[in-house]
Amino acid sequence: MSAERPARRRAIATVCLSGTLEDKLTAAAAAGFDGVEVFEPDLLASPWSPGEIAGRCADLGLSIDLYQPFRDLDSTDPERFARNLRRAECKFDVMAALGVDTVLVCSSVSPDAVDDPDRLAEQLATAAARAGERGLRIAYEALAWGTSVSTWERSWDVVRRAGSSALGLCLDSFHVLSRGGDPSGFAQVPGDKIFFLQLADAPQLRMDVLQWSRHHRLFPGQGAFDLPGFLGCVLAAGYTGPLSLEVFNDVYRQSDPARTAVDAMRSLQWLDESLALRRPDAGPPPPPAAPALTGWSFTELAVDGVSGPRVAGVLGALGFTHTGQHRSKPVQLWEQGRARVLLNASVVRPAATGVASVAALGLESADPVRSAERAEAMSAPVLPRSRGAAEAELSAIAAPDGTQVFFTRTVPDGWPADFLPTGQTAGAGAGITGVDHVGLAQPFDAFDEAGLFYRAVLGLEPQEVTELAAPFGLVRTRAVTGPDRAVRLALSVSALRRGGWAPGVPEPQYVAFVTDDLVATARRLRAADAPLLPVPANYVDDLDARFDLPADLLAAIGEHGLMYEEDAHGGYLHLATEVLGDRVFFEVVQRLGGYDGYGTADTPVRMAAHRRSRQTAVVPR
Amino acid sequence: MSAERPARRRAIATVCLSGTLEDKLTAAAAAGFDGVEVFEPDLLASPWSPGEIAGRCADLGLSIDLYQPFRDLDSTDPERFARNLRRAECKFDVMAALGVDTVLVCSSVSPDAVDDPDRLAEQLATAAARAGERGLRIAYEALAWGTSVSTWERSWDVVRRAGSSALGLCLDSFHVLSRGGDPSGFAQVPGDKIFFLQLADAPQLRMDVLQWSRHHRLFPGQGAFDLPGFLGCVLAAGYTGPLSLEVFNDVYRQSDPARTAVDAMRSLQWLDESLALRRPDAGPPPPPAAPALTGWSFTELAVDGVSGPRVAGVLGALGFTHTGQHRSKPVQLWEQGRARVLLNASVVRPAATGVASVAALGLESADPVRSAERAEAMSAPVLPRSRGAAEAELSAIAAPDGTQVFFTRTVPDGWPADFLPTGQTAGAGAGITGVDHVGLAQPFDAFDEAGLFYRAVLGLEPQEVTELAAPFGLVRTRAVTGPDRAVRLALSVSALRRGGWAPGVPEPQYVAFVTDDLVATARRLRAADAPLLPVPANYVDDLDARFDLPADLLAAIGEHGLMYEEDAHGGYLHLATEVLGDRVFFEVVQRLGGYDGYGTADTPVRMAAHRRSRQTAVVPR
Repeated sequence: MSAERPARRRAIATVCLSGTLEDKLTAAAAAGFDGVEVFEPDLLASPWSPGEIAGRCADLGLSIDLYQPFRDLDSTDPERFARNLRRAECKFDVMAALGVDTVLVCSSVSPDAVDDPDRLAEQLATAAARAGERGLRIAYEALAWGTSVSTWERSWDVVRRAGSSALGLCLDSFHVLSRGGDPSGFAQVPGDKIFFLQLADAPQLRMDVLQWSRHHRLFPGQGAFDLPGFLGCVLAAGYTGPLSLEVFNDVYRQSDPARTAVDAMRSLQWLDESLALRRPDAGPPPPPAAPALTGWSFTELAVDGVSGPRVAGVLGALGFTHTGQHRSKPVQLWEQGRARVLLNASVVRPAATGVASVAALGLESADPVRSAERAEAMSAPVLPRSRGAAEAELSAIAAPDGTQVFFTRTVPDGWPADFLPTGQTAGAGAGITGVDHVGLAQPFDAFDEAGLFYRAVLGLEPQEVTELAAPFGLVRTRAVTGPDRAVRLALSVSALRRGGWAPGVPEPQYVAFVTDDLVATARRLRAADAPLLPVPANYVDDLDARFDLPADLLAAIGEHGLMYEEDAHGGYLHLATEVLGDRVFFEVVQRLGGYDGYGTADTPVRMAAHRRSRQTAVVPR
Repeated sequence: MSAERPARRRAIATVCLSGTLEDKLTAAAAAGFDGVEVFEPDLLASPWSPGEIAGRCADLGLSIDLYQPFRDLDSTDPERFARNLRRAECKFDVMAALGVDTVLVCSSVSPDAVDDPDRLAEQLATAAARAGERGLRIAYEALAWGTSVSTWERSWDVVRRAGSSALGLCLDSFHVLSRGGDPSGFAQVPGDKIFFLQLADAPQLRMDVLQWSRHHRLFPGQGAFDLPGFLGCVLAAGYTGPLSLEVFNDVYRQSDPARTAVDAMRSLQWLDESLALRRPDAGPPPPPAAPALTGWSFTELAVDGVSGPRVAGVLGALGFTHTGQHRSKPVQLWEQGRARVLLNASVVRPAATGVASVAALGLESADPVRSAERAEAMSAPVLPRSRGAAEAELSAIAAPDGTQVFFTRTVPDGWPADFLPTGQTAGAGAGITGVDHVGLAQPFDAFDEAGLFYRAVLGLEPQEVTELAAPFGLVRTRAVTGPDRAVRLALSVSALRRGGWAPGVPEPQYVAFVTDDLVATARRLRAADAPLLPVPANYVDDLDARFDLPADLLAAIGEHGLMYEEDAHGGYLHLATEVLGDRVFFEVVQRLGGYDGYGTADTPVRMAAHRRSRQTAVVPR
């Protein structure tokens, strides 16, 4: 049964996207939206007449589902109300030319807003009657900061009192959930009185609700609100219109709209699925669930003729062995325990300048084919196979920062078969047993997108966003983790896009290997002359002041340049190498007890040390 | 008498500046600070031992006035308090090695904070006794979000109860003023119990005070707090220590510290003067007041072989006449009414690519020499004279965005004498009578700096910051204006640094000419084929919906591509040309009634239109 239900129509308000109206419509259509809300300022700035805009939308296969917003309609001043009605009539003309039948009227924020519900209902009914005469209708929305109407209950009371068939509600998840409103009450509203639904998520912030709304909204699945629960209540009430996004966000306002639109579409795909999992009868069936990701098969680094030998040398010093060579490409396989690193020198650049970056992540999937299908259903860009380093049948997608993600199974006839043994067998190593996590500095515009991407596409769970004061500006970090923490990614982004004063650009990426005994591992690394990052004595003295660490551990921390921090569950010992090439380094870490973090409190110390070592120009070996 | 008082010592917390401790100390010294507060995380990340840091400071002529912060000293858990004392002893060791005698202890934000004032006083006294034994002292500060101590009154009550000579107060303007605290109460505190003073300004924001404090503090004179009043109260109480800045600000955290330090120094110069004007007996005499700026003498545009002829052609179409030619340089003088534009092609570039930008502002000063002295006293960079277009004795300084500001007197033997008449006499013109304002898009890092610069250096008054949703991201604008609005500058900045998706970069600058009859002027400009920016019909229809404009005015608006907006005092008619070269355009404006704005509500429409005209590549004539 449910399989036959049509998919819900998906719309996006043009205000979500950057650019001119022309840019926005193109982006929305390309991402697969069915319709748009036309945000009035976008129309006012467009050289196209309303009829031309309607034509462009028709050409793009987009319906126009809403014209918005109409502000401050009601007034205690009859003369002003009359002027407002005239203003509304002008907008009805525009709507008729656009071919849109619904206008959003938001509750007044003016000092002359009508407080008496009957009088307010009367004024709304008057406007609705004018709209109705022209086959149009008004969706009335309670702004969370409205002068007299600031809750959906109050807006519904007024709409109910008005009793006009051309007047209904617009429900906006932000306005309801930011005030802690209860969407279960929507059950009392007849479905056909919910004229429109606007969806936005947001982080939990303690700030003025208007500023919160205007600057910090997010797409569903990116914030802290329960959007599936909200949507379930709206649909249960009988709403049948489009699911439409209205997100005011400082970053999205200035990002490539083509990219934002895909991100937005993914948020509705995620939302549809999340709801379907909770309420299987409520809509179309969800896409195949993301197969569990059970670990790391490899991390692939792109290197060149300058950085390649340097990185290989450091891997050797870290106890790795060059065990395999790709059959047809200049790709080396290095192994230690279950940690595998591919060094890929196949990207030909005009000149070798020491570029080294994380190019690809190989993730063990219980079902790689289904992982790829899932990714495609969640609007992830699927890459042509030839772009991977390996030749086995591998499906790869591109993450928001451009990193390739391969879905793999590390079995004899899988990707390892692409590598011929070098004859070198793994030595004693340095105690590294596998990969703990990979740290990826994100492009400034892609941080929230990445959280949703890894959540929706890979089934990883985004953790809390934390902020740290790093030497060259604030940095936000957020981990995304799989079940049992078999896969962990530490994402980071500068709080402001880096400018001219920006030492340490490009921001480094790293692979964190895990050991069961970091002190022993560190001893072996130093003996092998690995380029470990020095840690300041002042830092070690502070550890002594803050923690009751055993004297021998503290001595080892000082001797080997380790770092240490604690959370409520345990401790974390870690060390870093210098930056290799232009942006890659390695960490080796040891988790003590149930520590669940990533050593981010030590990041400023690490960044300052990296800054110094990069200033003094590490000469490639 | 007061002239003999020594200048107050000026200090800055290293947390105000971006970079490593090494970067920060260099920047503070170069800007002329006497001392620093060492922010502990900066020390922890430094490879220098405390003794080496002390040596470096001594070499730079910097004292270390405070070590900060020590957090969460007191505890209801005796064992934890004992551990905290041990932690404090470790920090006393660091302080001894640094040679600093005062540590900032801030009120606890921990759930185990002591609420009972006597018990809290006892714990603080215990710690102070340990400090006192080593010749050190504790400055106790109430954080605005402290668990049990969040007001300065409460912190003073505890310090008073403790009765320890090694325990005093640290007063922080942000913590007091953000909570609406009353600094006049400082009079009850003996001056020698105020151990330290931290100064920060801030904009008025409605948000969580901790977030406000950590992200949005500003230097004195940049925000909304009454810093002169606050400082006056602290000094009246008998405080004799340094004036020290502690500003946590997201933008400054990632800006060039050398530049931030100069901005910070200027804020204290401004603060000293502001206080001296209110309380002439309270300190050293202020620098010479900024002479009144009575108008625009010229605006100088830098052009090249491609953009020069184009801009000249447009000036001609706008009714300007090429009246003068510089005696020795390729600089043209164009005039209409009191509006004068210099086109300077003297900067030789490798290739003429159509660069056109605002290079200099000529401002009429009642006393140019005193203007320059004043600027130098306020840490403005004074430029060598040869950089100006003119040869007369002109003093010029560089504004934060690099624009040169000349102090001039437009008299026959002044700067006009550098120009030989072309023989062309001014024609009928187009009704332009002078310059209304100049619009300068600011570099991202320089917006708050610019507000203080124009305030402190030129005596202009910064107006409110407003925010507008422009097509390619949010934009903040702020005018700075002189007495009688004889000089107006409209500053703007993108809310986030522009990234890859950034049509319209570089952001345009403009000169707004004024007319008494914009409709008549526009008619003449169209007849002269001036490249006026088209305004969308949708915009004009919206004006009709919103305002009761006379039918003939509305028709003229539509016909000539004018824009219109109103404030509480009047209306504003304006038009814009297309962008000439890479970033300059002209506006012509007419103020109706007492309108005091800059047409910024129309900026999104203007920007969208410019985007289109720049996409279609204006071919230089």
